[in-house]
Amino acid sequence: MQATSIFEPVQERLQDVGESLKGMAADRFPYLATLLDHIFATPGKRVRPALTLLASNFHDHDERITHAMATAVELLHIATLIHDDTVDDSDLRRGRATVSNLWGGNAAVLVGDYLFAASATFVCDTVDVRVIKRFAETIMKLSAGELQEMSVSFSPDQSMEMYLDRIYNKTASLFTTAGESGALLSGASDADVRALKDYSCNLGMAFQIVDDILDIDGTEEEIGKPVGNDLLHGIITLPTLLAMRRHPQSTLISDFFRNKEDTSLLQEAISLIRDASVIEEAYQVAKEYSSKSLEALSTIPANPSRDALEELVGYVTIRRT
Amino acid sequence: MQATSIFEPVQERLQDVGESLKGMAADRFPYLATLLDHIFATPGKRVRPALTLLASNFHDHDERITHAMATAVELLHIATLIHDDTVDDSDLRRGRATVSNLWGGNAAVLVGDYLFAASATFVCDTVDVRVIKRFAETIMKLSAGELQEMSVSFSPDQSMEMYLDRIYNKTASLFTTAGESGALLSGASDADVRALKDYSCNLGMAFQIVDDILDIDGTEEEIGKPVGNDLLHGIITLPTLLAMRRHPQSTLISDFFRNKEDTSLLQEAISLIRDASVIEEAYQVAKEYSSKSLEALSTIPANPSRDALEELVGYVTIRRT
Repeated sequence: MQATSIFEPVQERLQDVGESLKGMAADRFPYLATLLDHIFATPGKRVRPALTLLASNFHDHDERITHAMATAVELLHIATLIHDDTVDDSDLRRGRATVSNLWGGNAAVLVGDYLFAASATFVCDTVDVRVIKRFAETIMKLSAGELQEMSVSFSPDQSMEMYLDRIYNKTASLFTTAGESGALLSGASDADVRALKDYSCNLGMAFQIVDDILDIDGTEEEIGKPVGNDLLHGIITLPTLLAMRRHPQSTLISDFFRNKEDTSLLQEAISLIRDASVIEEAYQVAKEYSSKSLEALSTIPANPSRDALEELVGYVTIRRT
Repeated sequence: MQATSIFEPVQERLQDVGESLKGMAADRFPYLATLLDHIFATPGKRVRPALTLLASNFHDHDERITHAMATAVELLHIATLIHDDTVDDSDLRRGRATVSNLWGGNAAVLVGDYLFAASATFVCDTVDVRVIKRFAETIMKLSAGELQEMSVSFSPDQSMEMYLDRIYNKTASLFTTAGESGALLSGASDADVRALKDYSCNLGMAFQIVDDILDIDGTEEEIGKPVGNDLLHGIITLPTLLAMRRHPQSTLISDFFRNKEDTSLLQEAISLIRDASVIEEAYQVAKEYSSKSLEALSTIPANPSRDALEELVGYVTIRRT
C-alpha cells in the first residue's frame, strides 16, 4: 500500500501544495534558488499536509485557507528535516544528498531558518491568530523535542515517560497541529475539532514508534540509512527500552555507550533489541496508539476523507519505509 | 554616551522586556532551562525593542501589545545571534562564551530554532496578522541576508548595490520592523507609520555600516573580537569596497582570499583598509543614512520619545562598541 493512493480525495490539492513549494524558488537570488530547487525536487510522503487537507474535508470552506495551512505544515516539516540532518551530520535523506552534505552545515542552518520563517508566512495567510500561535508553539515543541533527545543521548538511564514525552514533542505535535488546524479552519464543530486533533496526535505517536522500530528492524534499503542509526547516535527508543526491561541484568547498552567506537558491541546491542518478541511488543504499543486514533474517528461523519484517514492509520502501522 | 541613558523614556518597559525573557526559562526541562539562563543572563544594548517602544510612544494604546512586540523583536535578535555565532564558529559574543562554544553547534542550532519560534509566539500576542506576517517575512530577510553574505564570501568581485541590499536584509529589515510595528500597534496615522518606518530603516543601515567600520577600525577591546574579523571570514564590507575603489590596481584583497592562511597578507589588507580617509569616507556614507533617519523624524510630533529617537541616531553613528 502506498500513502499516495490513500490520499486520493486530496491528491490534486496535494499537488497544488507541491507547486506552491516549488514556486518559492522563483525570483530568489541564484544561490538561494539553487538550494530551494534541490530541497523541493523530491516530494516526500506528504503525510502531514494530507492530514490537514483530509481533516478539512468535512465542511465546505474557503480552500485557499487550508491550502495555505497544508503548505505551511509541509514546509515546516522540511525545515525541521534540514536542521535535523545538520545536527545529526547525515549525508543522505531518502537516498538523496542532504543540504548540509552538499552545501555545508552553515548553509543548511540558514536555509532551514529561511524555511521556518517561510512556513510562518504561509500560516499567516490563514488570517487566524489562534492557528498561527498554535503553529509557532508547535515549532517550539519540535525543537524542544530534539533538545530533549540530545540532552539524554548516550545516557542509558531513561524512562518510558521521557520517551513518550519526547516523541510527542518531536513528531506528534506537528501531526496534531496539522489535523487540528485543518478541522478548525474548515469551520468544524468543537467536538469534531477535538476528535480530529485526537486522531492526529495518536497517529503521530504511532508513526514515530513505527519509525523507531524500523530504525532497528528495517533493512538499510528500506529505511535509507544504516540499521541501528539511533543507537549509534546514543538515542534510546522504544525497542531499546523494551529490550532493557526484558534483560535487566544486561549491561550491553551502557557498555556500548561507554565505548562508542566498538562496532562489535553495537552489533551485539542491535541483535539484542532486534529480538522478534521485543519488536512484536513495540508494535503492540504502536497499535494501542493507532487504535485510539481510529476510535477518535468514530464520531466523525462518514465520507471518502474519513475512509482515507482510517486507511492512513493502517498504512502508518504496517509501512516499511 | 550610553544607549541606556538615551532610552530613558522607555527604561522601565525595557526592564519588563528583560523580565519576560528571563521568565522563559521557568518550567522548562533542566537542559533547556540552563541554556536559556545563560542566553538571557547578559542584557544586550536593547536597541531594537527600544525602537519598538519609543515608536509606540506617540499615541495612547494598550501597552501589553507593544510589550509583546518589543519582546518578540529582542528575542528574534537573540535567536539570530545564536545561529550567526554557530555559523561563524565564534567563541565569544561581547566577551562571553557563545552557546555553540559551551554546548556545541548542535545545541545552538536547536535552541536558536526554539527562540525563533518563541519570538513568533510573542508576536502572536499582538493579535495583528499584518504585523505577524511582516515579522515572519523579516525572519526570511534576516536569513536571506546571511545566505547572501555566505554565497559571496571570499569573492573579491562585489558591488556596492550587493552590499547595501545585504545589510538591509541582515540588519535594517529588523530595525524597520521594530520601529514600524511599534507605530502600527499604537494606532499611529499612516503618515506617522511611514515616517517611523523610514527612520528605523535608515537607522538600521547606519548602524550596520558603523558596525562594519568598527570591525576594521575599532580595537579588539572595543569590539570584543579580533580586528578585521569580517575580512578574515572573506566578508567584504563598505570600508573594503571603498579601499578597493581607491586602489583599483591593488590585488591585495584577492591575494589574501586565495591565500587565507597568510596572516601577513591579512595584516597588509587591514592596513590598506584602515586608512584614515577610507574610514572617513565610510562614515560619510553612514551619515547620509543617519541624516535621512533624522529627516524622517521631522514630521513626528515633538515629545521625549522623539528626542530619544534623535539622540539614538547620534549614538549609532559615534558609538565605539
